[in-house]
Amino acid sequence: MNNPFFKNHGPFKLSDIIDSNINQYSSSRDLTKVKELLYDVKNLNDASTKDITFFHSIKYKDLAIKTNAYACITKKEFFKYLPDNCIKISCDNVLLLTANVTSKFYPDSINDDSNHVLFSITEKFKNTISGKNTFVGYNVIIGDNTKIGHNTIIENNVKIGNNCLIGSNVIIRNSIIEDNVHILDGAIIGKKGFGFIPNISKNFRYPHVGYVHIKKNSEIGCCSTIDRGSLSVTVIGENTYLDNQVHIAHNVKIGNNCIIAGQVGIAGSSILGNNVIIGGQAGISGHLKIGNNVQIGGGSGVIKNIPDNSKVMGYPAKDFKKFLKENKSK
Amino acid sequence: MNNPFFKNHGPFKLSDIIDSNINQYSSSRDLTKVKELLYDVKNLNDASTKDITFFHSIKYKDLAIKTNAYACITKKEFFKYLPDNCIKISCDNVLLLTANVTSKFYPDSINDDSNHVLFSITEKFKNTISGKNTFVGYNVIIGDNTKIGHNTIIENNVKIGNNCLIGSNVIIRNSIIEDNVHILDGAIIGKKGFGFIPNISKNFRYPHVGYVHIKKNSEIGCCSTIDRGSLSVTVIGENTYLDNQVHIAHNVKIGNNCIIAGQVGIAGSSILGNNVIIGGQAGISGHLKIGNNVQIGGGSGVIKNIPDNSKVMGYPAKDFKKFLKENKSK
Amino acid sequence: MNNPFFKNHGPFKLSDIIDSNINQYSSSRDLTKVKELLYDVKNLNDASTKDITFFHSIKYKDLAIKTNAYACITKKEFFKYLPDNCIKISCDNVLLLTANVTSKFYPDSINDDSNHVLFSITEKFKNTISGKNTFVGYNVIIGDNTKIGHNTIIENNVKIGNNCLIGSNVIIRNSIIEDNVHILDGAIIGKKGFGFIPNISKNFRYPHVGYVHIKKNSEIGCCSTIDRGSLSVTVIGENTYLDNQVHIAHNVKIGNNCIIAGQVGIAGSSILGNNVIIGGQAGISGHLKIGNNVQIGGGSGVIKNIPDNSKVMGYPAKDFKKFLKENKSK
Repeated sequence: MNNPFFKNHGPFKLSDIIDSNINQYSSSRDLTKVKELLYDVKNLNDASTKDITFFHSIKYKDLAIKTNAYACITKKEFFKYLPDNCIKISCDNVLLLTANVTSKFYPDSINDDSNHVLFSITEKFKNTISGKNTFVGYNVIIGDNTKIGHNTIIENNVKIGNNCLIGSNVIIRNSIIEDNVHILDGAIIGKKGFGFIPNISKNFRYPHVGYVHIKKNSEIGCCSTIDRGSLSVTVIGENTYLDNQVHIAHNVKIGNNCIIAGQVGIAGSSILGNNVIIGGQAGISGHLKIGNNVQIGGGSGVIKNIPDNSKVMGYPAKDFKKFLKENKSK
Repeated sequence: MNNPFFKNHGPFKLSDIIDSNINQYSSSRDLTKVKELLYDVKNLNDASTKDITFFHSIKYKDLAIKTNAYACITKKEFFKYLPDNCIKISCDNVLLLTANVTSKFYPDSINDDSNHVLFSITEKFKNTISGKNTFVGYNVIIGDNTKIGHNTIIENNVKIGNNCLIGSNVIIRNSIIEDNVHILDGAIIGKKGFGFIPNISKNFRYPHVGYVHIKKNSEIGCCSTIDRGSLSVTVIGENTYLDNQVHIAHNVKIGNNCIIAGQVGIAGSSILGNNVIIGGQAGISGHLKIGNNVQIGGGSGVIKNIPDNSKVMGYPAKDFKKFLKENKSK
Repeated sequence: MNNPFFKNHGPFKLSDIIDSNINQYSSSRDLTKVKELLYDVKNLNDASTKDITFFHSIKYKDLAIKTNAYACITKKEFFKYLPDNCIKISCDNVLLLTANVTSKFYPDSINDDSNHVLFSITEKFKNTISGKNTFVGYNVIIGDNTKIGHNTIIENNVKIGNNCLIGSNVIIRNSIIEDNVHILDGAIIGKKGFGFIPNISKNFRYPHVGYVHIKKNSEIGCCSTIDRGSLSVTVIGENTYLDNQVHIAHNVKIGNNCIIAGQVGIAGSSILGNNVIIGGQAGISGHLKIGNNVQIGGGSGVIKNIPDNSKVMGYPAKDFKKFLKENKSK
């Protein structure tokens, strides 16, 4: 992901961004002697040879082996999984140090201050049909034949395609919305994710420099919330429909032609394939992989990966026929 | 239901509304020879001898046998359940063809375009006490002594009774609201249901020509969503209370004196009796029948009909005592 | 709790507030002969020797024994748990009589009429940076360097500290918000709780004379709802973070440094300790006690008290290791 919205304040030298008030870190090299400049902080698979990355969970071992990153924040016991030429930095709390480093590259990404200098949509976008009290911030594009309801606020960094319908009381920021997308009343799109490093006296808010990408022909239901990614993108695929009161956390990626019923929740960084159907109130834990053509029964709680073409139900979710059988006699 | 809100573009001849681009349909009669006009598309039990209906699931067998409809869209294997004199039309996808036919009768019911020609409530309804930035569309009636909060948008086709309290940030369309109803802040009432026919390249949105009917003395909590019916009405009975963040899908009918706690979800077309009490976060699947005086424990997932006077809990929901017993030793 | 917001219309004589149209009550004394004035209605543990209280569930037996209340509304079979010098009043429906008495002390607390005489924030608070269409009611204080988004309504009786960020489309009433609190878009804070006495013809709404107290450094997610207490306070502790679409019912008290993920619901009067972590979509029943350092897995349904330092998951929630073990082979 090249960041389309947040200003990158880099490049930095390693010794500039890993400072001495982070206790107890060790490195495979003397950081003060590294002269090369680092241009960005990225995920393991996105990082180039000029970027720094992080590796905090064994789940990402296979990506770590192949990373091109110049340097990686990790734990000491994970050094062995990283390429030889990658500079390894270990510390007590990988996510905290990564958050610190990210804050230096993107200092504007931590809080969602509302932009207080807004423009009237009807004045600024003469060709857009827009309701009462609708306003836009900076860096906003609205396509042809797109209609916007009432009291809707489009904050900074939003691109909306052609033929979209945006409802009333909607709030959008840091998002790319393709053609023919419908966003229904009260939805909130592109808010910073629920991410922070727990800390006894005052939690440290994790920067969210990503954005939300809603692909063409999709629909987002009333009062649904879609958070933007931390270092990556939150994606809603083409022709995918979300019902009311659905919550999609940061970094989630949903495929094409999916149907997601009311009050479903998908936790951070999970990835769903195409043609996935999810019944009402089901929940999916974070960092999971749900295959193509998967069906998840209403109310299910999914806590592990689900292979392609499966049908599951239950809490925890299991094979659908097994669920029915186990619950038949009861 | 005689449609109070959407303009019916009929009557039509059968051959005008079942067109040749729907592949592979067969009929019990040669449709081009049927000269009678069809006046409306209705449910099996509502259809008169001048209407067309549809029959897509064996669940509705008993209603099919008794239908008065002039014609019925169904599957070939269901022909035998329909009266002899009913013209039977079969196709691959009953709901898709029904949606197509409904769209011809009610072309305005597919999208919820916000009405962009709104009037200030304080100007149009001199006797209504109304807050800042409140607007109404066409065909709106507001009763005596009803109060409305701030930023509330009442779109087209709404009738509100006397002594109602409507909160702030509320959105209402296509709804009949009786006397003494309280609708709390952020609720969204009368939006089109989550209905569409899945289709690989672009889903086909199902028309929702119904409305929402909230009977007297009821209360709808903050951020709750109540969708309007597709061909029928979504009903909230008298003296029924919904807590915050409840989702009621299209065609649901809830009886009188019910208590529905926070974050409950009820899927499409389910019918609840009177005096039903539902604990927080419980979910009810679609097309179910919940009897009178039923109690459903918090967090339950109801996936089958529940007879009168039952108390259930669990996922799937079972007899309450059995649930307690099974979970005691654990 | 000394009520900071609602006007107390007392003091009253007992015979003035327990009237004869409440059928079938009995007392340990002749109420018409009690001359002392009662100054307030409070919970068992908050009541002074000049207050009336109520005792409706055996759960509160230990508090009843120690109450200082001058009089107590209860059931006849609970008389024995109350101190000798406490005047005992029994009736068919303890909560209904208590609600009646509370309504006499606080007649303004039953409905959340929006205040229709609002002031523009930008006009009234010259030093507050505030967006479009933001309004405040009476008795509102906003601290230094606090920013407010767009379309946000701050109704009567709100105190907001310094350095807070309040988003757009937020509604706040009857709340005390300390320094450095973030309230994200669409949250609704301080609404009356979901409380009423069920009644066949028309439910009796329970008065909610309490308020919401959000302590410093906390964050409330988008579209979350926090209801104010009935006779006590709903508390969100310091440095506690709530994700989107969380529902916190009346009288709930959450400790410090808690993390509550998306779509969690906590029913009325439950009390949570410090450092509690709750996964997405979990639910906690009412009137429970959750200890310090408790972890509750996503999707869990907690229906009993949880001791300190426990980790639980499941519906109903049980020891986490047991949950994993039982579900392993499946």
